[in-house]
Amino acid sequence: MNASLPIPDAQSFELGPWSVIQLARIEEALERWVGADERVPESLAQPMRYAVLDGGKRLRPLLVLAACEAVGGLPQAALRAACAVELIHAYSLVHDDMPCMDNDVLRRGKPTVHVRFGEASALLAGDALQALAFELLTPDDGSVPPAMQARLCRLLAQAAGASGMAGGQAIDLASVGRPLNSEQLHEMHRLKTGALLLGSVLMGAACGPTEPRTMAALTDYGSAMGLAFQVVDDILDVTADSSTLGKTAGKDAAHDKPTFVSLMGLRPSQNYAQELLSQARASLRATGLQNTAPLQALADKLVNRVF
Amino acid sequence: MNASLPIPDAQSFELGPWSVIQLARIEEALERWVGADERVPESLAQPMRYAVLDGGKRLRPLLVLAACEAVGGLPQAALRAACAVELIHAYSLVHDDMPCMDNDVLRRGKPTVHVRFGEASALLAGDALQALAFELLTPDDGSVPPAMQARLCRLLAQAAGASGMAGGQAIDLASVGRPLNSEQLHEMHRLKTGALLLGSVLMGAACGPTEPRTMAALTDYGSAMGLAFQVVDDILDVTADSSTLGKTAGKDAAHDKPTFVSLMGLRPSQNYAQELLSQARASLRATGLQNTAPLQALADKLVNRVF
Repeated sequence: MNASLPIPDAQSFELGPWSVIQLARIEEALERWVGADERVPESLAQPMRYAVLDGGKRLRPLLVLAACEAVGGLPQAALRAACAVELIHAYSLVHDDMPCMDNDVLRRGKPTVHVRFGEASALLAGDALQALAFELLTPDDGSVPPAMQARLCRLLAQAAGASGMAGGQAIDLASVGRPLNSEQLHEMHRLKTGALLLGSVLMGAACGPTEPRTMAALTDYGSAMGLAFQVVDDILDVTADSSTLGKTAGKDAAHDKPTFVSLMGLRPSQNYAQELLSQARASLRATGLQNTAPLQALADKLVNRVF
Repeated sequence: MNASLPIPDAQSFELGPWSVIQLARIEEALERWVGADERVPESLAQPMRYAVLDGGKRLRPLLVLAACEAVGGLPQAALRAACAVELIHAYSLVHDDMPCMDNDVLRRGKPTVHVRFGEASALLAGDALQALAFELLTPDDGSVPPAMQARLCRLLAQAAGASGMAGGQAIDLASVGRPLNSEQLHEMHRLKTGALLLGSVLMGAACGPTEPRTMAALTDYGSAMGLAFQVVDDILDVTADSSTLGKTAGKDAAHDKPTFVSLMGLRPSQNYAQELLSQARASLRATGLQNTAPLQALADKLVNRVF
């Protein structure tokens, strides 16, 4: 659990010895925890599992585990936090794809949840995934100290809620067809995508002992990563095709949504992504932590990804 | 905070010295905590506040506060738990009213959230209310011991999630137009409505020290109350009119949904509600607690309500 090898391949989240081990842990845990409880009605367990399993880059869980390793934290707490963050991400995609939101039919190369199971089931599955995230963070088996559980719940609730991800989505919703300036676009993405990515880093760090200086630097790292992720997403929306992305490409332009590319242009957006990567690297050095190779590798990979 | 006066009026949740004080605390706290943070985008704060404020019987928060008083628990913890439970209840109503679910246009005498703000905003407001519930339970100000925070989060997540409220809604969804037998109907309501009402009682009790015997008896009380609530709801759906209920009456029959009345008949359902009230009273006596007058009064009121 304390392997600190860098991830050699910058094009895939699945390669490299560290991430192979961690991805296996994540998939096994999600498989075990999502909709597998026999008390969950089958009609709800199915869309929940469909939304979460067998898909996704697991970037957020990897950030949690990498941050936990960097601070020498509790692995079993980090695994729960990793899965909890992924459940929040998954529920947000399910709801975001619904007809009243983005009305998207393709996600991770599969029909979206509401296309496959109906809108009502998609709505409920998303709601249940959010609750499950907090249930995962609060085990009753003595494996995670109660104070750590409470702190993880606080960080996740803040990242997911009205002053985090949900707030960003509300700004996004209100912005369709309206010109946003650079400051407004940054604020929207800081909340919509950035809050949960930053939250992933902070939750991983909350699984171990941290000094204020370390948390501040990790906050800078997570903030840069959150922004970079969205800049790259906007770039890929115009440069990649749907089969590579596993979702509908070009939809932001089609929906007249403001993006970094529409605001800055393609080339400046690419430069901006690299600049954010440099900032993230500098922040990692400022943490004073030794074991930051996985966080470093994830940053490289996130910015240089092609899907 | 330790007043133990009974609530004299069985027809309204607002009357009686104990409940007047507690309702004022609840309303003040909700007003202060929901969508009032300046970091929350206004387009999200509005539907969140609309969904929660100025409406509702606040039955679940009152159950939390009454249970906390019975065990001599921490008032500031119970107030947070009371509001958190109400936010979960409110979000479930917002989502349940949406066109893909019950497609209801009237709630608490007002247009439903999606009618007033649009479906996308209703979806997001519900999601944000669920996150806020967990944020309220995990304050960073030292007011609630971390272990209590963690336990409250666990109880709420279990009550709200796939093996609780959301699970019951999924069974409900799958049951439309299908005959349910008595056992299936009980199971659906045990989850759909009962889990959060029971959760309210258990969360209130978790704000103080409790012995296993007390928790077991309070679980019996909460379970009886959860079931009684739904039986009475089904009775009112056929005996009351929309203006009294503040929501559309007769909709269960119109949607061909199975109810206790459709299964047992009206008079047997009324007898069943009284029988559950007797069970709840007996369970309260079995707690061995002294200060159960508010819990007793809430049980009476819940079963004998007319709205």
